[in-house]
Amino acid sequence: MNFSIPLDAHSEQYRYKYLALYHAIRAAVLDGTLPAGTRLPSSRELAEMYGLSRGSVAHAYDLLHAEGYVRSAVGSGTYVAPVVPAGPEPGRRAAHISLSPWGTRIMVQPRPQPDDPVKDGAGPGPAEGVISFVDAGPSASAFPHAEWKSALAWAAREKQGSGGAAAMDTAGEPELRAAIAAYLRRSRGIAADAEQICLFNGSMQAIMLLTQLLLGEGERAVLEDPCYHGISRAVAACGAIAVPGAVDGDGIIPRDWDARVLFVTPGRQFPTGAVLSPERRQALLAWAAARNAVIVEDDYDTEFRWGGCPLEPLKALDRDERVVYIGSFSKTMFASLRIGYAVLPRSLVQPALRAKGLYEPVPPARLEQRALARFMRRGDYERHLRRMRRIYSAKHELFRRTLEAEIPALFALKPADAGLLVFADWRRTPKEYAAFREAARLRGVQFRDGAVYRLTPGPPAACFSLSHLDDERVLEGVYRMNLAWKDI
Amino acid sequence: MNFSIPLDAHSEQYRYKYLALYHAIRAAVLDGTLPAGTRLPSSRELAEMYGLSRGSVAHAYDLLHAEGYVRSAVGSGTYVAPVVPAGPEPGRRAAHISLSPWGTRIMVQPRPQPDDPVKDGAGPGPAEGVISFVDAGPSASAFPHAEWKSALAWAAREKQGSGGAAAMDTAGEPELRAAIAAYLRRSRGIAADAEQICLFNGSMQAIMLLTQLLLGEGERAVLEDPCYHGISRAVAACGAIAVPGAVDGDGIIPRDWDARVLFVTPGRQFPTGAVLSPERRQALLAWAAARNAVIVEDDYDTEFRWGGCPLEPLKALDRDERVVYIGSFSKTMFASLRIGYAVLPRSLVQPALRAKGLYEPVPPARLEQRALARFMRRGDYERHLRRMRRIYSAKHELFRRTLEAEIPALFALKPADAGLLVFADWRRTPKEYAAFREAARLRGVQFRDGAVYRLTPGPPAACFSLSHLDDERVLEGVYRMNLAWKDI
Repeated sequence: MNFSIPLDAHSEQYRYKYLALYHAIRAAVLDGTLPAGTRLPSSRELAEMYGLSRGSVAHAYDLLHAEGYVRSAVGSGTYVAPVVPAGPEPGRRAAHISLSPWGTRIMVQPRPQPDDPVKDGAGPGPAEGVISFVDAGPSASAFPHAEWKSALAWAAREKQGSGGAAAMDTAGEPELRAAIAAYLRRSRGIAADAEQICLFNGSMQAIMLLTQLLLGEGERAVLEDPCYHGISRAVAACGAIAVPGAVDGDGIIPRDWDARVLFVTPGRQFPTGAVLSPERRQALLAWAAARNAVIVEDDYDTEFRWGGCPLEPLKALDRDERVVYIGSFSKTMFASLRIGYAVLPRSLVQPALRAKGLYEPVPPARLEQRALARFMRRGDYERHLRRMRRIYSAKHELFRRTLEAEIPALFALKPADAGLLVFADWRRTPKEYAAFREAARLRGVQFRDGAVYRLTPGPPAACFSLSHLDDERVLEGVYRMNLAWKDI
Repeated sequence: MNFSIPLDAHSEQYRYKYLALYHAIRAAVLDGTLPAGTRLPSSRELAEMYGLSRGSVAHAYDLLHAEGYVRSAVGSGTYVAPVVPAGPEPGRRAAHISLSPWGTRIMVQPRPQPDDPVKDGAGPGPAEGVISFVDAGPSASAFPHAEWKSALAWAAREKQGSGGAAAMDTAGEPELRAAIAAYLRRSRGIAADAEQICLFNGSMQAIMLLTQLLLGEGERAVLEDPCYHGISRAVAACGAIAVPGAVDGDGIIPRDWDARVLFVTPGRQFPTGAVLSPERRQALLAWAAARNAVIVEDDYDTEFRWGGCPLEPLKALDRDERVVYIGSFSKTMFASLRIGYAVLPRSLVQPALRAKGLYEPVPPARLEQRALARFMRRGDYERHLRRMRRIYSAKHELFRRTLEAEIPALFALKPADAGLLVFADWRRTPKEYAAFREAARLRGVQFRDGAVYRLTPGPPAACFSLSHLDDERVLEGVYRMNLAWKDI
């Protein structure tokens, strides 16, 4: 049959074939290319025409059908429906809506980069064949899916809606908070009880709300330089001033900063991987006491430390209740499980609950929280961590060895005994770095530019995330980088 | 055996017996009443001693065990463990942490009332025998649990973590947004496409983030008076000024307000239940166009309108893209499903995604979102709504008839053809209202005080939520109120 749509144009835009197809047909319907009543090919026909799986075509048709763009008549196939064009009528201009100072601040922040998993809306992911060292969350293949499914099934057995809104705790499920308290007591030496623990939808929600609670416009907060861009965005959103704290091989270098809050990653500095020395831990606590400052300790992945002696988190040394400890399950479980938590000084418990309650008077993800509590109580969580620690350390070693064997002249790898991320300083000129990055891209290798995390200009650096790649892909990626370098 | 703990003291504090028991024992361990090594009674013994179910005792023991307060030795029972007391050491004072202006604003807001389902942390819910007309979410008994479970199972079949963080859309699952677009097109006459729809963790998250995006400190927003206290809290949190908009039997009375934003519930005014007249809908849109203001339309429960001709939402009349339409599934599905959504003017899509992405770079509740998309695509959602509409309208009529038959002199019920809430003006003196409310409490009847929702002082009023009560309880509640009135 005579039928054609500009599928390629959309394929670049959308990670999934079904989405590309959906958008291609939808656009054709809206701009009249496919007028109402046009008969569309069967899913089999279309699948053949564009070399797609029938599943993808069926999925795209489902979406179009659900949105009312197409109709199907039993036995006689699928037809374009007469649709209302969305948006303002022709000739009618849309209102210009001006934003608040807060809204303006967040819109002038640098857009997340194309290779940044933290996206505004869906965007292109790595195409087939591309090896992406950009963080895409933990390995899905190594996850104990069976144990998690059974925990979910257990949690789902509870009658939906039982207890009602009134029975729910703004801080999150009591059982999970108790399980986390027990875990922290055992594994991190933090003697907190469930009442001090508040659950959040990932650690960024905790960081944002604490920033709002602690930092007014124009007030100063110390951030590690480099640091996770989510933290610098949170501080900028509140109109507060980020004071860069220099980082070396022992972590952040203590100073007598004039600031109300310090954001720090002592267990493993993000992104450099440096472990904060015991002396500096004491120095930071002394500074905070002298300045009556609050320390927000983001312990984002020390679960995966496999070497060195275990160091106490600042929270375990916090004698006068000024340290907030933040943890997350998104890196230890799977990326789409958005459960983080904060261990709060008692004086911040009520403010944190008030803040969270403004956005979520009834907490979300109750099912997953109950499932996770079960998963932890049964010991599945710590078993999983032990296993992943072995897997990640081996992967990390493999990457390090291969990189140093293949392209020793290019990167200076920071020593690291933990974590899912390898931060590597570039050994040559910025010009050569730019050329290499482009050559690597052409060879189908993506990695995060270290500059993303810098508050102040610094030498070029790259971040390699390995957790989601199997060993073959890791090796292949390094080989391709070697070829990319030869290309120049 | 000789063993006693102050259970009663904690029973008043905690809704669940297991929590009361857990806290009682925990306190006794921490203050040394139960020293390390003390053997605790078996769950059966303890259950008998305090007239608890063995399940409750077992649950409490699990929590204590998980938190490391007790240990069990096989065959020889449960013993108090040596525990680290949490919190600052004796003699060491906790730091005083000062809050930002934002933090201070939210802490000076009136605390949610004891009978308010929006709680700071867990609190006392209705005790056995008490009939609570306080909103506790939709009826759990009438919910199609089987269909929901199968949708959940379908969604859970997806491999956890597949796609990874990069594949996830800040706006929420594309399938669910497409299903919502189709539903709004069919049932509300709103021609929006999935790209304009952003999912939130309940409607309050949408309201808070939009308030932050649109209202700076000292800027003015019109709120209906009375209105949902969540909205007035959101406006106050941002330091904006709430301009009260008077409400009568036809909804909010249009004025030429000097304000940037209007929050309105046209489908069914919250809490009075008035339906905004068509003339006023046009007048509000004209006002917004003249003032270049944004209208936030909270369509919180018109799914349950059973009478009157269907009225178009403001969003369906929005020709120049200045109306934000907010909907939620928490009232139509079950209270613990925290999925709300906003249909955004195109110019607000990116700001809304940026705002949400600051708190949730990767969106939560993916499992439930996929399950809900499936539930809607299969028609289960609209079948459920049709059924609930019948059930709620019958319950509503029963309550109205009985109240007018039993205690006609007390309340003037607002006419309503929809909704889960009955707003009733008190016909007699404020003094008598206070006396009646107390007498009702003593008779074991709780209802929400209408004053909670007022921005400006007004005559006494009561709010009765029926959705979670079966017919017998509704009748019993009215009878008891009759007796309570006789008590005075």
